[in-house]
Amino acid sequence: MASNQSVSQSAGTVSPLLARFDAPFIFRSGKSIPGFELMYEAYGTLNADKSNAVLVCHALNASHHVAGIDANGDEGWWDNMVGPGKPLDTNRFYVIGVNNLGGCFGSTGPKHANPQTGKPYGADFPVVTVEDWVNAQALLADQLGIDCFAAVMGGSLGAMQALQWAIAYPKRVRHALVIASTPKLSAQNIAFNEVARQAIITDPEFHGGHYYEHGVVPANGLRVARMVGHITYLSDDVMGERFGRELRDGLQYGYGAEFQIESYLRHQGEKFSGYFDANTYLLITKALDYFDPAAAHDGNLAKALAPARGVGFLVVSFTTDWRFSPAKSREIVDALTANRTNVSYAEIDAPHGHDEFLLTDPRYHALARTYYERVWNSIGSRT
Amino acid sequence: MASNQSVSQSAGTVSPLLARFDAPFIFRSGKSIPGFELMYEAYGTLNADKSNAVLVCHALNASHHVAGIDANGDEGWWDNMVGPGKPLDTNRFYVIGVNNLGGCFGSTGPKHANPQTGKPYGADFPVVTVEDWVNAQALLADQLGIDCFAAVMGGSLGAMQALQWAIAYPKRVRHALVIASTPKLSAQNIAFNEVARQAIITDPEFHGGHYYEHGVVPANGLRVARMVGHITYLSDDVMGERFGRELRDGLQYGYGAEFQIESYLRHQGEKFSGYFDANTYLLITKALDYFDPAAAHDGNLAKALAPARGVGFLVVSFTTDWRFSPAKSREIVDALTANRTNVSYAEIDAPHGHDEFLLTDPRYHALARTYYERVWNSIGSRT
Repeated sequence: MASNQSVSQSAGTVSPLLARFDAPFIFRSGKSIPGFELMYEAYGTLNADKSNAVLVCHALNASHHVAGIDANGDEGWWDNMVGPGKPLDTNRFYVIGVNNLGGCFGSTGPKHANPQTGKPYGADFPVVTVEDWVNAQALLADQLGIDCFAAVMGGSLGAMQALQWAIAYPKRVRHALVIASTPKLSAQNIAFNEVARQAIITDPEFHGGHYYEHGVVPANGLRVARMVGHITYLSDDVMGERFGRELRDGLQYGYGAEFQIESYLRHQGEKFSGYFDANTYLLITKALDYFDPAAAHDGNLAKALAPARGVGFLVVSFTTDWRFSPAKSREIVDALTANRTNVSYAEIDAPHGHDEFLLTDPRYHALARTYYERVWNSIGSRT
Repeated sequence: MASNQSVSQSAGTVSPLLARFDAPFIFRSGKSIPGFELMYEAYGTLNADKSNAVLVCHALNASHHVAGIDANGDEGWWDNMVGPGKPLDTNRFYVIGVNNLGGCFGSTGPKHANPQTGKPYGADFPVVTVEDWVNAQALLADQLGIDCFAAVMGGSLGAMQALQWAIAYPKRVRHALVIASTPKLSAQNIAFNEVARQAIITDPEFHGGHYYEHGVVPANGLRVARMVGHITYLSDDVMGERFGRELRDGLQYGYGAEFQIESYLRHQGEKFSGYFDANTYLLITKALDYFDPAAAHDGNLAKALAPARGVGFLVVSFTTDWRFSPAKSREIVDALTANRTNVSYAEIDAPHGHDEFLLTDPRYHALARTYYERVWNSIGSRT
């Protein structure tokens, strides 16, 4: 009967869906676009009272393709978490993944034509915030007739969206799963984002964000941006264990990729610059920088989270995550506890740093599975 | 009598000196240059038996201008440490600062003409290592008639040179002061250097390292390189305290420098790219990456340091230094202890991260002062 006894399977072959919204969308900045589209995928079956829907929010470089295999043969970015018999079990839940507004995987973003000019938005696409993303996701939920998600889940920037759902739409989300997150970026976090942005913006191929019209992309800037980001996703230890000071082919006394770590980082940068849009990267780093729900409450996070009192929380952090350290997750937990909000917290002793949220640490996955058992039971009791 | 009772003063107005070496210099890589020059400064008075000389080695962006005020009115980079009555007291010691080979402050480097072509070396300047720098410094000592330094001192990359002096020339150095250092870079350290290099090398103005001939400099790449480096010099905490999430002028929803930390980093990058040479930056990051004296001894650092048994060591680390953490300094201390080498070690609880070695933490400066008292006494007993 319990899904955790069943065998895990892939969500199988999946196809994206496109939702169209014709009303103007007003961003937090005050700017607006006349309408937009969101690309999404869904796995499992929505039940009769539409109470079993779970929204999975993506982080910096991911997309709506959360699970299963798409038309390109690519596996979803959280396929180890989402699928039949997996911790987020699509035999029970109807799971939705959405490419966020401003993204580069099908949802309306800088690559798309600005209806006012007929040319790509480029740098004119409004700066987007976590709040904007969540508001757009809520419009998608409206269109799908989903009044209340059983859960909203995410890691890193995705977890910020889960938090924001609980703050902005507490009646529309029963549970928030907040993995490897922070209530706000530190100065150091912003600093790394700024390095990435400067690498992109000062690339001569950036052309002030209107590179599409020049038939080029700021690939060098995007490569460097990804390289610096990637360093912050891995723990110092795991980088040491995996690459150490290993050389590819002895000392060359030159500027080729001599150390394995150099080769690995260059490969990551190269791969990323081949599929990701630089303007979207800029937008997403800004959304990260801006997220700070406590700012409107004189820095009081408990006040910011007060509306979320009725939401159940799972907060998870990883000991070796130096990007968003466990101390940041504990700030969230402390604020929730101060509000007497129902929260479970786990600090998982795991080696891989921030990236751990995408990996299959057995304690982490067992925890998610157990928590979704609770989510499932909370639906059963729903009137 | 003791210098620590006297009032600290500046070394005053100082002028650089140029030493010329006409014999070919062979680098560790096997490449050579037909001759070279070293720019240096000296403070204090060399005593009759030339036993009171101290060599101060610079790190990434510094120069021979260690103390006093130069012709541009600029204060030396370690003026708080070196001068009359200061911890390294120029009333007692004859202190020498050298711009390293391959540098961009007067010593022969990529900006200088390759005698074989008449054009600047540019990217053809041989890749330089810590070993090469120390060998060149030893030639300067020869020219100055200094058989044995009372001490060689440095922080960060400068400390690597002090270590290398003790390994390569143990009879020519009585004491090595090794501050905020590491016996080798970690994969993460190399990764940050590689990001910096890629930012420079992929700047279209780099022209394969021969930008001088094009009348341009890869300023954008150098700016990004400095920004990423700078993040690693400061502790997360001090960056948070100094800048936090403070905005310059409210949220702008754009890509200007909105947060104070962005403004600070851009300023650092801008300043650096105005005075530093990109080819030298590449060389120095490579020298950092390559330094690994234990590599020739199957990773056994004690074996590598065995020749230095007769040298006295002061090793200092700072608790918040995440670039070269105290654990790295302890590796050095453990290896020295295993060799029964005379070593004093202090781990200073200080907030500023790696940059602390340049600051005036009173415990750190008191320690240096006390250690130089010991150095002074060791000279007194010299026959």
